[in-house]
Amino acid sequence: MTNFSFLLPVLALSISLVFAVDASTLQDFCVTNPIGQGNSECKDPKLVGANDFFFSGIHIAGNTTNPSGSKVTPVFASQLPGLNTLGISIARIDIAPWGINPPHTHPRATEIFTVLEGTLEVGFITSNPDNRHFTKVLQKGDVFVFPIGLIHYQRNIGYDNVVALVALSSQNPGVITIGNAVFGATPEISSDVLTKAFQLDKNTINYLQSKF
Amino acid sequence: MTNFSFLLPVLALSISLVFAVDASTLQDFCVTNPIGQGNSECKDPKLVGANDFFFSGIHIAGNTTNPSGSKVTPVFASQLPGLNTLGISIARIDIAPWGINPPHTHPRATEIFTVLEGTLEVGFITSNPDNRHFTKVLQKGDVFVFPIGLIHYQRNIGYDNVVALVALSSQNPGVITIGNAVFGATPEISSDVLTKAFQLDKNTINYLQSKF
Amino acid sequence: MTNFSFLLPVLALSISLVFAVDASTLQDFCVTNPIGQGNSECKDPKLVGANDFFFSGIHIAGNTTNPSGSKVTPVFASQLPGLNTLGISIARIDIAPWGINPPHTHPRATEIFTVLEGTLEVGFITSNPDNRHFTKVLQKGDVFVFPIGLIHYQRNIGYDNVVALVALSSQNPGVITIGNAVFGATPEISSDVLTKAFQLDKNTINYLQSKF
Amino acid sequence: MTNFSFLLPVLALSISLVFAVDASTLQDFCVTNPIGQGNSECKDPKLVGANDFFFSGIHIAGNTTNPSGSKVTPVFASQLPGLNTLGISIARIDIAPWGINPPHTHPRATEIFTVLEGTLEVGFITSNPDNRHFTKVLQKGDVFVFPIGLIHYQRNIGYDNVVALVALSSQNPGVITIGNAVFGATPEISSDVLTKAFQLDKNTINYLQSKF
Amino acid sequence: MTNFSFLLPVLALSISLVFAVDASTLQDFCVTNPIGQGNSECKDPKLVGANDFFFSGIHIAGNTTNPSGSKVTPVFASQLPGLNTLGISIARIDIAPWGINPPHTHPRATEIFTVLEGTLEVGFITSNPDNRHFTKVLQKGDVFVFPIGLIHYQRNIGYDNVVALVALSSQNPGVITIGNAVFGATPEISSDVLTKAFQLDKNTINYLQSKF
Amino acid sequence: MTNFSFLLPVLALSISLVFAVDASTLQDFCVTNPIGQGNSECKDPKLVGANDFFFSGIHIAGNTTNPSGSKVTPVFASQLPGLNTLGISIARIDIAPWGINPPHTHPRATEIFTVLEGTLEVGFITSNPDNRHFTKVLQKGDVFVFPIGLIHYQRNIGYDNVVALVALSSQNPGVITIGNAVFGATPEISSDVLTKAFQLDKNTINYLQSKF
Repeated sequence: MTNFSFLLPVLALSISLVFAVDASTLQDFCVTNPIGQGNSECKDPKLVGANDFFFSGIHIAGNTTNPSGSKVTPVFASQLPGLNTLGISIARIDIAPWGINPPHTHPRATEIFTVLEGTLEVGFITSNPDNRHFTKVLQKGDVFVFPIGLIHYQRNIGYDNVVALVALSSQNPGVITIGNAVFGATPEISSDVLTKAFQLDKNTINYLQSKF
Repeated sequence: MTNFSFLLPVLALSISLVFAVDASTLQDFCVTNPIGQGNSECKDPKLVGANDFFFSGIHIAGNTTNPSGSKVTPVFASQLPGLNTLGISIARIDIAPWGINPPHTHPRATEIFTVLEGTLEVGFITSNPDNRHFTKVLQKGDVFVFPIGLIHYQRNIGYDNVVALVALSSQNPGVITIGNAVFGATPEISSDVLTKAFQLDKNTINYLQSKF
Repeated sequence: MTNFSFLLPVLALSISLVFAVDASTLQDFCVTNPIGQGNSECKDPKLVGANDFFFSGIHIAGNTTNPSGSKVTPVFASQLPGLNTLGISIARIDIAPWGINPPHTHPRATEIFTVLEGTLEVGFITSNPDNRHFTKVLQKGDVFVFPIGLIHYQRNIGYDNVVALVALSSQNPGVITIGNAVFGATPEISSDVLTKAFQLDKNTINYLQSKF
Repeated sequence: MTNFSFLLPVLALSISLVFAVDASTLQDFCVTNPIGQGNSECKDPKLVGANDFFFSGIHIAGNTTNPSGSKVTPVFASQLPGLNTLGISIARIDIAPWGINPPHTHPRATEIFTVLEGTLEVGFITSNPDNRHFTKVLQKGDVFVFPIGLIHYQRNIGYDNVVALVALSSQNPGVITIGNAVFGATPEISSDVLTKAFQLDKNTINYLQSKF
Repeated sequence: MTNFSFLLPVLALSISLVFAVDASTLQDFCVTNPIGQGNSECKDPKLVGANDFFFSGIHIAGNTTNPSGSKVTPVFASQLPGLNTLGISIARIDIAPWGINPPHTHPRATEIFTVLEGTLEVGFITSNPDNRHFTKVLQKGDVFVFPIGLIHYQRNIGYDNVVALVALSSQNPGVITIGNAVFGATPEISSDVLTKAFQLDKNTINYLQSKF
Repeated sequence: MTNFSFLLPVLALSISLVFAVDASTLQDFCVTNPIGQGNSECKDPKLVGANDFFFSGIHIAGNTTNPSGSKVTPVFASQLPGLNTLGISIARIDIAPWGINPPHTHPRATEIFTVLEGTLEVGFITSNPDNRHFTKVLQKGDVFVFPIGLIHYQRNIGYDNVVALVALSSQNPGVITIGNAVFGATPEISSDVLTKAFQLDKNTINYLQSKF
């Protein structure tokens, strides 16, 4: 990539990079190399091969030794270039006993969650004004839907690891983890906003911001 | 509406309320009566008149005497039936001095925020992993964009009321206020999830849940 | 509105099935009861509960004692009403040793195929004029993409059952099994068309049509 | 269906016409009966037959004995119910020698114009600020594209009738004939607007309005 | 591919501008520099800042000293690069007393018109065959909808300036002013077409063409 | 710009050829030069002229002296660059007496088939599980619809050539001829798959594969 940088002025004037939508395709496929976020050009179809549609290792457990006790292994267009323009992706989720996948949204995707192993509680919350909480305990073989854009979470409530495979309705669904976005943004959100928004004193807000 | 409820079981079996997408229209317009959420049938075009495309009162200040010191006055398809199928709506936002419009997302719309009166700070946070915080002080005549699905907020930092007019890229953008959805959901989200997600002790979580 | 109720039986017969597109939602969700193909009305949101987003039993093996030695267990909007308008679905695929999932297309969906158990060969063929055949041997933990509309198949080449979970980019992807559609259509396609299209004699065509 | 007709006035008031978008289908087809503009419910698939996808008579010349000397014969979803949800339609255009198809737009469709007989001039005008006029003389076998939403026209410049077949990228493209819309609207547009917009005196505007 | 390299200079001049659709985003945002019409590449997200989502000056009155007595100040993706791919834009409209915003269409956008100051008449005309004229007198605080693709206008009928803020459902809505497109196209539309289309004599048409 | 050519290997790896969707346009048009499949950049609008929207020769009969006795002459975006982003295309179909257009699908388009000359049988087959065969005999002036993604065919059953003009709802509809894709793929599909899928012995499969 080093000798690529000097090209940028030219690129900036001429082609530069791209675009980004989920929509009907115009050809059989449009494979892209994951050079950067939002890179969606088509690889020459003659150079495309089966490996462009292939990914391996989804059977390998993610490392859950972290504060939330969970790990998401994405297979998005960045990991599987053949998904470009096709409007779908998957991910593996591992959750240690009593770990959680904390409240988050996918701004660009509905998620279908399929339990391969374990027992967990899942939930999502509807938009204003009702903010209804839909929750369910899931076992192996259960399937649950988190509609696009809504806040949802999973919590392992069993004694074994939870393993799940999820399908997402975008090649790049995006993830906004509520805690990280609100208390861990860079630079920080003013504590004046957060104390008022969460009705917490400044010390608690500062404590929260130091954690994320 | 009282004598309408007995129809619900039948409706549930037969027509019920129909559908819901933002997409290209198939006719000049498809005005709907706001019978219920998601109601999108077309009024007989012969009965449609100019008033179906009309709303008045957007110049009237919203009542900001509430904990957040702000008020949103929506002009969505529910308030302006002629907007049905047209993929756009507006709202007025009033914020008292030092009031805030707390962190929230619109799952179905980008927002263009135009300041009519006052001085305020606005910001939005990008998705994982960076959670970058883009913030700006706005004055009268300034315009700012909050991209679809991202968490954003506004805070009055002046001595006068803030008045803004916003445009939204959906006839029904939806609002998810983070605090309400996370700490005020019905039924409550288990404190096991929230203590872990926000790294707070159970008492603070309980306190938060009692507030929302 | 009182005299509206007597219309309902007629409405049930006439309007019924309503519409059908994959597009941005206009509300958090639009749950539908699976009365019939293409049924897409929204259930009253107040009556919607977590069970509308739930399906169980995807861990149960499908019965592969049939000529092709394979079984697809769909979890589409018909089986999981909460998927309505959300543009995604899943399915489980079981293939007995040396069984196949015969060549077919999904006219409305890209498929991401994830191997949970077994060893198999998969392939898809590009459109005219090249009709390139992309093929790959897959093991447990491998993922493969079949782009929307292209003919594809799977074949168990191991000694154990193949179990796969697939994600599809439509709530109702549709399946066109080539053999069934071409040789098993009702009424039959004229053997004049088929002899010419497949350059086979009339006896072979008749034999094929008797099999499907 | 006989006792169905008395319901129509009620239907017009209550459910009426439902919805309307051009988008991906959710099923093989969604045939609709042409009860009214914008009517998009799906006929029971079991009752659908080949005739729902059939229209005849496009070889019959339209009657061009009218002031503009032209006639459009539409084959839209209203005329061919099988086109519902499929995003395409066609029309036949007949233009007598020196007749015109006056300047108009299709708000929902690009048009591909194919000359079957005759010689004509066609043109379209780009949007502001350039208002460039793209024009071409066409003969039998020529094809021309009018991009969606742009004002265009055709004029027979030969001695024989022009016959054309056009394809349109919507099941209901819509037509706005500029002269009719501007000078023939009901009720009339105030002459104050028109004198200023077209820099004509009031008498000429009144004369124009009396003509349309 | 060897003889392909000499094409690059041409490619640099020709390809450039890239693509262009309103659709779901594939990432948080895709900021573009306004190099030219239709330029939609994504700026490197790391170089994006709050100013890319910012525009100032919408409170400044437009100069209405022109024949129509009105001025539109656009805030489209060309003026506010952060709007790229987000499907929405705004504009300010100033109309002097008795000035008009002459009949025009937006081929790619519905418009929501909000009156900030003044009194005006607005109207739009439906498509063929009815060409119904929907008209309304608006005051400060009134809101009116002009559905996508339909001809519409505004006319100041008060003694003060009209100031309006409009929201448009496209990042680049396009404007076709009817008078300019029909009588001011370059090169001119043949007077044979216009005399027939508007039933005016050649002198009046020539007069009109000289004015635009 | 001469020293730009050495960049090609880099460009080939990085940007290559771009994107591809059918969706709403963002400008009046986006003409592309047919440099390669999937190439969808916009030509500089100032260099665009009427010829970019023009194609000639659709009145010339295709050469049907081939095994199927039919010929398709496409007018897609590759042949008519002005069609880029506009979501529609056309083609001419010639079928000699007793020739056929063999069973095929268009993965990205509905087709409206208009008979200009001759007598033919047409048919399409619905998806699983019914695989219903809808068939019809067509004469000059008849119109028939083949819904997107479904297998369909045409067969000349008269004594004269069939000439048809078809409209397709994509700028690049794609064609998958069933026989070619299944029996003529490169490399061949394993005969193990085909014998099982079509319940034919290996010799017949080998014979079929040698033919395609």
